[in-house]
Amino acid sequence: MNNKIKLTNSENLPCQLAIFKNYKCILESGINLENFHLAFKTYGKLNKQKNNAILICHALTGDQFVTENNPITNKNGWWARMVGPNKPIDTNKYFVICSNVLGGCMGSTGPKEINTKTDKPYGFEFPSITIKDMVKVQKILIDALEIEKIFAVVGGSMGAMQVLQWIIDFPEKILNAIHIAGALKHSTQNIAFHEVGRQAIMNDPSWQKGEYIVKNIRPERGLAVARMIAHITYLSEDALHRKFGRKLQSKDIISFDFDADFQIESYLRYQGRSFVNRFDANSYLFITRAMDYFDLTEIFPKSISLNSNLYKHINYLVISFTSDWLFPTKENKQIVKILNNNACKISFTEIETDKGHDSFLLDEPDLDQSIMGFLNSNFNKL
Amino acid sequence: MNNKIKLTNSENLPCQLAIFKNYKCILESGINLENFHLAFKTYGKLNKQKNNAILICHALTGDQFVTENNPITNKNGWWARMVGPNKPIDTNKYFVICSNVLGGCMGSTGPKEINTKTDKPYGFEFPSITIKDMVKVQKILIDALEIEKIFAVVGGSMGAMQVLQWIIDFPEKILNAIHIAGALKHSTQNIAFHEVGRQAIMNDPSWQKGEYIVKNIRPERGLAVARMIAHITYLSEDALHRKFGRKLQSKDIISFDFDADFQIESYLRYQGRSFVNRFDANSYLFITRAMDYFDLTEIFPKSISLNSNLYKHINYLVISFTSDWLFPTKENKQIVKILNNNACKISFTEIETDKGHDSFLLDEPDLDQSIMGFLNSNFNKL
Repeated sequence: MNNKIKLTNSENLPCQLAIFKNYKCILESGINLENFHLAFKTYGKLNKQKNNAILICHALTGDQFVTENNPITNKNGWWARMVGPNKPIDTNKYFVICSNVLGGCMGSTGPKEINTKTDKPYGFEFPSITIKDMVKVQKILIDALEIEKIFAVVGGSMGAMQVLQWIIDFPEKILNAIHIAGALKHSTQNIAFHEVGRQAIMNDPSWQKGEYIVKNIRPERGLAVARMIAHITYLSEDALHRKFGRKLQSKDIISFDFDADFQIESYLRYQGRSFVNRFDANSYLFITRAMDYFDLTEIFPKSISLNSNLYKHINYLVISFTSDWLFPTKENKQIVKILNNNACKISFTEIETDKGHDSFLLDEPDLDQSIMGFLNSNFNKL
Repeated sequence: MNNKIKLTNSENLPCQLAIFKNYKCILESGINLENFHLAFKTYGKLNKQKNNAILICHALTGDQFVTENNPITNKNGWWARMVGPNKPIDTNKYFVICSNVLGGCMGSTGPKEINTKTDKPYGFEFPSITIKDMVKVQKILIDALEIEKIFAVVGGSMGAMQVLQWIIDFPEKILNAIHIAGALKHSTQNIAFHEVGRQAIMNDPSWQKGEYIVKNIRPERGLAVARMIAHITYLSEDALHRKFGRKLQSKDIISFDFDADFQIESYLRYQGRSFVNRFDANSYLFITRAMDYFDLTEIFPKSISLNSNLYKHINYLVISFTSDWLFPTKENKQIVKILNNNACKISFTEIETDKGHDSFLLDEPDLDQSIMGFLNSNFNKL
């Protein structure tokens, strides 16, 4: 094990910590991130052959608490229905690892953590990070865990971006890759929605140019608005209509005022309010920025066609959802096409659902079946 | 002419004013709006037969300055390409009327105008208004102008909602109706986007519970965010991609900070900033609420089937745009279906374009042709 990396239990959270002390890590921006740590959680056991490790990459507002109880929300982890004993990603069989992304707010080094150089929270002074940076430090963690080859790397949404980056940067480390509801780049419309969310946060006077923690306040209103905007984009019009329609909220008639008349309004307000209790506004700024910067439209096809031998051993699964308008099937298919054109072992499935982008987190039996079937059949071939 | 209504020139704006003094107008909420006024603008001349009047109903952020110069923005009116001498809606031929909606902020009674009972701006004390209320006062204005029958009522988006309301409430007043990019109801997703915009405004500390005018401040940041959100929904992903793609803003490389790196970001920031100079935040709250309340899904088919004779003389034109995801073709077709089922004289056209909901304001030759052809052929039959 690299002696610069110390694996320990977190003092604050029921998870582990990988401490990178004096570890030189040059970020894509050119900045050297020296002392940093990643909070991570594992489920199941690494087998003797060390060939059953699955790395799960979380989405924008996810974290390392994939399954079981999330200690901050006191609810189930974000993928509890997918990951666990006898679940599609079966922790009786696989050793599941998930680390809070660099820049996150669940224990990994991010804007709300202490900058050892100043002894104050980084705040807005946190260095700009990219998806490539997130993957780079995950790779160091995997090395520190002495896992030579990851059986599978899996992720949806921003997690899918990390999966693509893993493929390009460390193809030799992975045997299988599951990419759910992602794209080669963040689209103009997606950048636009993120930008409005960021403006909502940065326009909140409590944001205080990012220095709100030392002033003991929080830009809750701006962050709630950002979450509400994003939340609409995670669903589909059909799902919203089915769930809420124009149904009124605990009244028979409209109020003719600005209370939440419609159920969709109180639902969104609730989504906004509950989000601010678990997420840091600056993390939201830095991570959305990382997603916006993501663009493998040139590198991905070029890498795979020029060095196709590096990528041929990997089994790829790409999944999209019919009603996902954030990362539509069309964009997922671009990845499939590139892999197909280079004779890679690629499976693709488009799942029929009206639940929108969030389908990857929701009850979708076809999704469970696809992931379970793909993992188990490839594991049996080992 | 009703002696309670005085038509005069506005003192503040280059338009006319209809002053309803001691005029009893019971709003849908039950509130009696007593002293109010509508700012309106006319173009062209009413002919001797008084049969060439076209009423244009404006959209959420539109106003009575349809064409020529808008005195507030110092730019062309919002439909200058459609309305004017020798334009598709030809003011050499037609007498065009457009009034700023009740609740608006361009001279009609709205939250920023003085409440004669308190001598202070209404602010958040303004009564809740509906699309039906807007149309009700337009009808009084048309009567005051001594126009017995409107040749055509025309509107897109919220203007289309008013067109439907005109049809249901005053079918005897209109001969032709052009409904562009609207729907029988505001959808759940549309309500959701509006609600987030309202939360952005009401969360801005400068909003001051709606009493910002007397405190001489303005919730500019919240209103700008609301505008940015809405603006994304007015365009399509394809239009955004074509116009901006992932092009960088005046730099060759990404900044790794929170400046506007992408052109779409600076475009949205500009849209937000320029909007606050011409629009009142409380008006935005009240008018979006009116749109959300709009729902003719029951009344429209019922009225038309039960009293079909009242609606048979009207020529209807419904227009939708392929890339409009705010008021999609599917929803426009529901109106067409009802009119068809009741043997009304209905024409429908879906225009192929990637420009999204805003297509009705943009250069769309098919739109010009449809409107011009429909109006002129029906005018020739008079």
